[in-house]
Amino acid sequence: MIVLLTDFGSKDPFVGIMKGVMLSYHPTLSIVDLTHDISPQDVAEAAFVLKTSLAYFPKATLFVVVVDPGVGTNRKIIYVETSRHRFLAPDNGILGWVLEEENPVRILEVKNSKYFLKPISNTFHGRDIFAPVAAHLAVGLNPEELGPAMRLEDLVSSPLPKPVQEKDGSWRGHVIYIDRFGNLITNLWQSLLHLKGDEKVELFLKGKTFKGFAKAYGNNHQNGGIVLLNSFNTVEVAVSHGNAAVAYGVKKGEEVVLRCLTSSS
Amino acid sequence: MIVLLTDFGSKDPFVGIMKGVMLSYHPTLSIVDLTHDISPQDVAEAAFVLKTSLAYFPKATLFVVVVDPGVGTNRKIIYVETSRHRFLAPDNGILGWVLEEENPVRILEVKNSKYFLKPISNTFHGRDIFAPVAAHLAVGLNPEELGPAMRLEDLVSSPLPKPVQEKDGSWRGHVIYIDRFGNLITNLWQSLLHLKGDEKVELFLKGKTFKGFAKAYGNNHQNGGIVLLNSFNTVEVAVSHGNAAVAYGVKKGEEVVLRCLTSSS
Amino acid sequence: MIVLLTDFGSKDPFVGIMKGVMLSYHPTLSIVDLTHDISPQDVAEAAFVLKTSLAYFPKATLFVVVVDPGVGTNRKIIYVETSRHRFLAPDNGILGWVLEEENPVRILEVKNSKYFLKPISNTFHGRDIFAPVAAHLAVGLNPEELGPAMRLEDLVSSPLPKPVQEKDGSWRGHVIYIDRFGNLITNLWQSLLHLKGDEKVELFLKGKTFKGFAKAYGNNHQNGGIVLLNSFNTVEVAVSHGNAAVAYGVKKGEEVVLRCLTSSS
Repeated sequence: MIVLLTDFGSKDPFVGIMKGVMLSYHPTLSIVDLTHDISPQDVAEAAFVLKTSLAYFPKATLFVVVVDPGVGTNRKIIYVETSRHRFLAPDNGILGWVLEEENPVRILEVKNSKYFLKPISNTFHGRDIFAPVAAHLAVGLNPEELGPAMRLEDLVSSPLPKPVQEKDGSWRGHVIYIDRFGNLITNLWQSLLHLKGDEKVELFLKGKTFKGFAKAYGNNHQNGGIVLLNSFNTVEVAVSHGNAAVAYGVKKGEEVVLRCLTSSS
Repeated sequence: MIVLLTDFGSKDPFVGIMKGVMLSYHPTLSIVDLTHDISPQDVAEAAFVLKTSLAYFPKATLFVVVVDPGVGTNRKIIYVETSRHRFLAPDNGILGWVLEEENPVRILEVKNSKYFLKPISNTFHGRDIFAPVAAHLAVGLNPEELGPAMRLEDLVSSPLPKPVQEKDGSWRGHVIYIDRFGNLITNLWQSLLHLKGDEKVELFLKGKTFKGFAKAYGNNHQNGGIVLLNSFNTVEVAVSHGNAAVAYGVKKGEEVVLRCLTSSS
Repeated sequence: MIVLLTDFGSKDPFVGIMKGVMLSYHPTLSIVDLTHDISPQDVAEAAFVLKTSLAYFPKATLFVVVVDPGVGTNRKIIYVETSRHRFLAPDNGILGWVLEEENPVRILEVKNSKYFLKPISNTFHGRDIFAPVAAHLAVGLNPEELGPAMRLEDLVSSPLPKPVQEKDGSWRGHVIYIDRFGNLITNLWQSLLHLKGDEKVELFLKGKTFKGFAKAYGNNHQNGGIVLLNSFNTVEVAVSHGNAAVAYGVKKGEEVVLRCLTSSS
């Protein structure tokens, strides 16, 4: 199974063309769209979506990740295998959060043009490199054919923002993703902050203070903002039956501070 | 076959994750997207889309409907079987219009957590309950395993707007859906009003009067608004080669009155 | 394999319903979405997408193209076979660019209502004609059953804009497509202008002059506009890491002039 994650959107035929290329090699291939609406060239957003999604896909799924502002320059394309999944992606840090969680067992540079479409454009490697290489892998190509091995430390280091802990124990992070409901998703990961979800917390955002944790979107009776641990296992600010991004005028990148009121108990 | 209808949009990975869960159980499952762009939390819009679509899908298709503002509260999840189709949905009235047309032969509350993903989040039951339950049903699970039987009268009653007939015989209804072309689709159902499509009618909307019925979008020579019986079998206001919602500044919920000029002949 | 290209968007259930109809006839049919976000009723945009995509799909793929402002009027529906592909489309010039490149070996008018859904609406032939006819073809219907043969010269002629060459050798064309990254794609086709990509060129657009050709989006150090030969083999104006349509306030239809500085060398 191949899973596609791109910033190609749904208007242009880019994704359809990639599928055409793959199905030309392998007509019964199963291709699933994770999303194609990553904000254009937003490597961090794609990294977040990938990290929070991949546990729900079958073992050995091949994730083809094409969020690639450097297409056509000398950035590398890499093939990575972990004990659970496989990835084709540009070497731009996009696999950073994944590789903190899953140890790579094989990293290769994708160089062997034998498996590319010709001529290779400078602007659409999704069609000319990613799609045909993915299809070849799906029909059983030995990945070693793709190119030379790389070491983890050879990869471009991840540009992804990390939260920091202040002296008073509070955590300073950022809104890293806003979903279609306007929920403000932060990089305050449950596992990193050792949160269980039953703590009392205060979250500070744009001069406002929010109390948490709420248990669900729907059970808020004040009709204001709520803080909860979401299904991605990060801290989130939401408005019940509303849109927090609009209500508070928040954009991606906004700073948040979380203080655990019951942390010392 | 499984058909998905949600308000998850295409930007976030929610739909892709649901597919990942289902395909983890059943790699060759056939999954069709009806739409994921229901306006957020708009139960009536989803009910309309479902009612007007389901006749075109094969018998026994399982519709998985996740427009669920009450996720994580004590709202129930239900499994409903009619003589033609099967449904998994929150118990929030979303199946109201369907169950006026197709008699339910089995209604069950989905309670048996044996078929859920663990841990169950409070915010993403699409992933944790709907997807795995749908996959279990697709591989042959006896639905009786899901939970106790319910009666039709136990379900949350439908919040869906209905047209009313005035003393003078005219019908007062609402714009319940606006499609991407800006066509204004009303709840004046052809069957309810006993319309054949060859009547002369007047429709009143925002102080304007429109004449009908036109036969098609393209054959209007006045270049103004037209009234027609659309492919959903409801009364619709459209602008030939234009956008009626923009032209007349109409939003969902706007009132319409239809008068049949040839009804007494 | 069936490929769908429409202006139905993703919000409405139109595409899902078409798939339901097709899968009702043929449950294991492979259906690929090229795009459904063609600008409403924009025949030229669909023609461009089709022309630049079809080489990447397997031989004998059936393209079902429903961008059809004349639905329900007396416009014809046609079935066209070339040596490489098959097409179902309204007869409105939408296949114009394709038929300049691939010679048709069979053109038929789709008239035999035996293969349509009944009743046939006047507004949704995608569901009532295109989908069931496509499914019948996919299960082996002899196309001759669809209706009478037509000649190429009987088809509605293409409304698609063409570039013209000026006396001084420069080419005057138009922006015919703007992709999601804001790249301005022109109808200055590489093949028509006999471009190799290593020429020095000047492009004039809205009073500005751009130099080309750049090799890739990412390798521009001036942080301004660049001109390149894109993956569709046409001349394109882009802004590295930015959005050219926004930066220069350009809409589809804007005129461009390209001058080859090294054409006489």
